[in-house]
Amino acid sequence: MIKAKTWILTKHFDGFPTDSNFELKVEELTEPKNGEVLLEAVFLSVDPYMRPFSKVRMKEGEVMIGTQVAKVLQSKNAAFPVGSYVVGRCGWRTHTVCDGTGLTSIIADWPQDVSLSLALGTIGMPGLTAVYGIEDVLDLQKGETLLVNAAAGAVGSVVGQIAKIKGCKVVGSAGSDAKVAFLKELGFDEAFNYKTVGSLEEALSKASPDGYDCFFENVGGPFSTVALQQMKEFGRIAVCGGIATYNDTTPQTGPYPHLTMIFKQLKMEGFMQSRWEHKHPESLKRLLGWLKEGKLQSREHVTKGFEQMPAAFMGMLRGENIGKAIVAV
Amino acid sequence: MIKAKTWILTKHFDGFPTDSNFELKVEELTEPKNGEVLLEAVFLSVDPYMRPFSKVRMKEGEVMIGTQVAKVLQSKNAAFPVGSYVVGRCGWRTHTVCDGTGLTSIIADWPQDVSLSLALGTIGMPGLTAVYGIEDVLDLQKGETLLVNAAAGAVGSVVGQIAKIKGCKVVGSAGSDAKVAFLKELGFDEAFNYKTVGSLEEALSKASPDGYDCFFENVGGPFSTVALQQMKEFGRIAVCGGIATYNDTTPQTGPYPHLTMIFKQLKMEGFMQSRWEHKHPESLKRLLGWLKEGKLQSREHVTKGFEQMPAAFMGMLRGENIGKAIVAV
Repeated sequence: MIKAKTWILTKHFDGFPTDSNFELKVEELTEPKNGEVLLEAVFLSVDPYMRPFSKVRMKEGEVMIGTQVAKVLQSKNAAFPVGSYVVGRCGWRTHTVCDGTGLTSIIADWPQDVSLSLALGTIGMPGLTAVYGIEDVLDLQKGETLLVNAAAGAVGSVVGQIAKIKGCKVVGSAGSDAKVAFLKELGFDEAFNYKTVGSLEEALSKASPDGYDCFFENVGGPFSTVALQQMKEFGRIAVCGGIATYNDTTPQTGPYPHLTMIFKQLKMEGFMQSRWEHKHPESLKRLLGWLKEGKLQSREHVTKGFEQMPAAFMGMLRGENIGKAIVAV
Repeated sequence: MIKAKTWILTKHFDGFPTDSNFELKVEELTEPKNGEVLLEAVFLSVDPYMRPFSKVRMKEGEVMIGTQVAKVLQSKNAAFPVGSYVVGRCGWRTHTVCDGTGLTSIIADWPQDVSLSLALGTIGMPGLTAVYGIEDVLDLQKGETLLVNAAAGAVGSVVGQIAKIKGCKVVGSAGSDAKVAFLKELGFDEAFNYKTVGSLEEALSKASPDGYDCFFENVGGPFSTVALQQMKEFGRIAVCGGIATYNDTTPQTGPYPHLTMIFKQLKMEGFMQSRWEHKHPESLKRLLGWLKEGKLQSREHVTKGFEQMPAAFMGMLRGENIGKAIVAV
């Protein structure tokens, strides 16, 4: 008999998550049948999207949603041989028995010296989000100026680096001086700590007096209102996240953006990386190529122990991580 | 000596405009020099955009901005012969001496039985706004469902009719039962009075239970928040106006739209018709073609007398007009 530890969402989040939203539960799994595999989690991902998605995609009592890198322990599915590694949408659990649905093998030429955890970050969903946001939503062009917030996060840090690869000026906002130092290391042209700048408006206009062609939005809330005013005419905004609003008990409000959008003729588009799933293999190859060439750096904030999943998740929502938040089992 | 009556913006609007914002002033004009013409206003336009634009494009003491249909009384410019009619951005004034800048001759095959005032409405700026919003911003496709608010206004009424020409389902919102009756006459599939429906959410979902592919936004404010929730996945929103917010003394606020835009992967774009100025001649021909074929109906709300300009303007902002608000000198 195989035992799996799982983290259950006992109650939907109301405001900021607390320990009481989660319960560790042991589940007994049956041996894999034909077409199935038994997986053991190696790295698990905690991501901002889990907060809003839990509300719309989950019922109370279910295992928390999420992606992991897992090792194949037993296999009755030729696509996933024993000892190989996969990325799977298994949720917060140490062991999983499933057929191949939702599993992807780690890409073929993964370098020996690169942690497999990056398949949950720079060479995974957050990296893909950065690529599609920049290329398919913003259509960012060489020489343009890009603003990105939550810039030291899993997505933001890749966004800024890809924009540099494309020959753009990059301005990043983050929530601590250590994060700002990290952004400078990554090659951001300008970076500031939004918590200490005093006036966000002044920080933005000082960083780019001519305004911004593109804005990769990860935060939402009051930041978005100020940033909108600093867009150039025909500016484009990729709406990827709104972490500043995810834990609201009653929705925060701000001025309606219509008049600014009209005067500046702005375009704003919400998106999720899954829209371009058909391009994932090619995009992951490009990301890995940039990593190998040293054009893309990756930093992780690793928490040890499956028992720490809720703490790692809440810490990430508080912005404690620099780079991708990962749990190592 | 030629005398021109003009309406001056004495003080920038603060909240809803009042008579005290305006002053009627007589100006003495000199005879046209080489390259110049003397114009006499026949029809003047009052439009919602004048309210927000006055703040950013005008100084106190200047003649109110605006467009008019005028007759050429004297001409030292071969492009505009005496007796011909032009559309000009002359502002609120009965007589103007100017060179050809900003003047456009009424299009060549204008039918005898069509009032020249339509060059300020359906066959003018509002009609062009409808065309570009539908074709260039929304890229509206046959079979899709379109929502338009302020639907009985100069722009909205053309938007709905063009969407019908393109084979779409059209839902319109307006602010009186008479306006709703007008929309039904125009061929709108569904129309409702937003002031009396009780729940806007229910009215929208009853009018199109499957939601909306496209939304032509003229109103802004709380309407926009409710409408956003009713968009289909990958819905597109053309932000043309925000009349519900133009007279705010402090900006109204509403919930940030980010999360809805992400989950539904919505696209929102602000625009002004001037972006496509190079296409105006061809677009006006198409609008006139639809009018001649009876596919496009036009209604006007005409106020008599240049002295009534401020009253006509304020009445339009209050929504007293069905169709295009026009002042006949």
